[in-house]
Amino acid sequence: MSAQLIPSILELRHALSDVRRAGRSIGLVPTMGALHAGHGRLIERARQQTDCVVVSIFVNPIQFNQRQDYDRYPRPLAEDLAFCSAGGVDIVFAPSVEEMYPSAQLAMVEVARVTEHLCGKSRPGHFRGVTTVVLKLLNIVQPDRAYFGEKDVQQLATIRRMAIDLDVPVEIVGVPTVREEDGLALSSRNRHLSPLERRIAPALYRALQAAGQLMASGTTDPQQIKTKALATLHPFPQIRVEYFEIVDPDEMQPVERIAGPVRVAVAAWLGTTRLIDNILCRVPSGSAGPFV
Amino acid sequence: MSAQLIPSILELRHALSDVRRAGRSIGLVPTMGALHAGHGRLIERARQQTDCVVVSIFVNPIQFNQRQDYDRYPRPLAEDLAFCSAGGVDIVFAPSVEEMYPSAQLAMVEVARVTEHLCGKSRPGHFRGVTTVVLKLLNIVQPDRAYFGEKDVQQLATIRRMAIDLDVPVEIVGVPTVREEDGLALSSRNRHLSPLERRIAPALYRALQAAGQLMASGTTDPQQIKTKALATLHPFPQIRVEYFEIVDPDEMQPVERIAGPVRVAVAAWLGTTRLIDNILCRVPSGSAGPFV
Repeated sequence: MSAQLIPSILELRHALSDVRRAGRSIGLVPTMGALHAGHGRLIERARQQTDCVVVSIFVNPIQFNQRQDYDRYPRPLAEDLAFCSAGGVDIVFAPSVEEMYPSAQLAMVEVARVTEHLCGKSRPGHFRGVTTVVLKLLNIVQPDRAYFGEKDVQQLATIRRMAIDLDVPVEIVGVPTVREEDGLALSSRNRHLSPLERRIAPALYRALQAAGQLMASGTTDPQQIKTKALATLHPFPQIRVEYFEIVDPDEMQPVERIAGPVRVAVAAWLGTTRLIDNILCRVPSGSAGPFV
Repeated sequence: MSAQLIPSILELRHALSDVRRAGRSIGLVPTMGALHAGHGRLIERARQQTDCVVVSIFVNPIQFNQRQDYDRYPRPLAEDLAFCSAGGVDIVFAPSVEEMYPSAQLAMVEVARVTEHLCGKSRPGHFRGVTTVVLKLLNIVQPDRAYFGEKDVQQLATIRRMAIDLDVPVEIVGVPTVREEDGLALSSRNRHLSPLERRIAPALYRALQAAGQLMASGTTDPQQIKTKALATLHPFPQIRVEYFEIVDPDEMQPVERIAGPVRVAVAAWLGTTRLIDNILCRVPSGSAGPFV
């Protein structure tokens, strides 16, 4: 079965009101296209949990900090459509920029605190662009559930908090990161890596794992963990680390001592390509808690 | 029939999902309580256009600039309930502050430009508080239509723009201002006026009308209109004008020349009470347009 391509908001609303009237649940997978197995996992999960799966494909201009990054973002629509059809997607919503922003976008949604550190620091306005377009998509599709990858963990936490704080009637579902065999997290941006950069890139995941092992063996000082984990990257001068942080999983605030589950998150540049990755870590039960 | 009082979001969602399943349309009248005939007109309109009318009563702390104003805002819940029952309201949603803001409200909605002038200038953060709570209410109730008074014209324009820009699936309905016989616009704040202030207050409406008459007779220079209209307030030194502006009806921007429909809007203090009012004006057809 091929997925139905709908470029217009009005047409999509009509199609979905029929779905809703038939008592079928709706799952939304918001994407910027250039679909890969990571998106495939989101689609798979949506198919398991909902009756009608909508994938939106929209390279959202208001979340890019640099025109160049926006311009060079890949847009292989025909391949994406085939990917969606093969994955059992019911509807692909692929609006134009004019369809999504017919006039100046004056209303914006901002989530404080959660967007303060990590990517929020170096990408001013980025998350405001993300939350604004995601809220628009949620209002257009009105899904029962919406699916986001854990690779973009700050985005996931921000959208989750937006949905809670604004009482959006949707369940936000986070889906674990899909990785290449060598550990590199799948990303549409990986295709920009040179062969050498591609060989080096998995070092980021290994640095995260090193941090996780230190925690597992009882280290609770984030600074100590950071220093040792970053040392694993020293053999690769091509990697320019933007941040390497240990944060709480809900509000993405750097922790002063590890005493519960945390996210270890990294952003780094390889040449002109910016990669991000993260893992969830816990201190082993019985080990140093806050009162030991 | 008495209106059903519901203080909990979950309970309200349940009640309304039954309404929706029965194919009945829902109208929302968001209020801060202290209901008067102005609200009555909103309720009346909602009853004409929708099957199930929900009035929300919530004095929203995040839209007040001064703690004192928030504290002294009237909260006559029993009277409001009786008013709603008499008016044929189906459900009164009256949540506590804890119900609406169970944790720090990190997600906020802001509408640029429309909130720049008039009340936006003297009340920083006010409209952000309004749009945020209104979006929450729209997400909780998911009405087909929501009703707002034209008295708060900048609020109406801001909410309208929010709904358009964020693709909120609701029709925002503006309802004309209800006035006392002497012209004073109904407001929950009128009860704070001393007898003298109450006698003087209608001068604001007369100043707006004076501006309207100048336009009707062909004056197109806003500055000239402003000066003459404000002169009508000179006999009342008790009135401290905060602004008197002529703006376009959609984005609330001061116009440089009157060439189409405009809103004339005023805010003024009488003692410790701040009153606002506005009227819609048009240049007479055939008179000075932009190219004459």
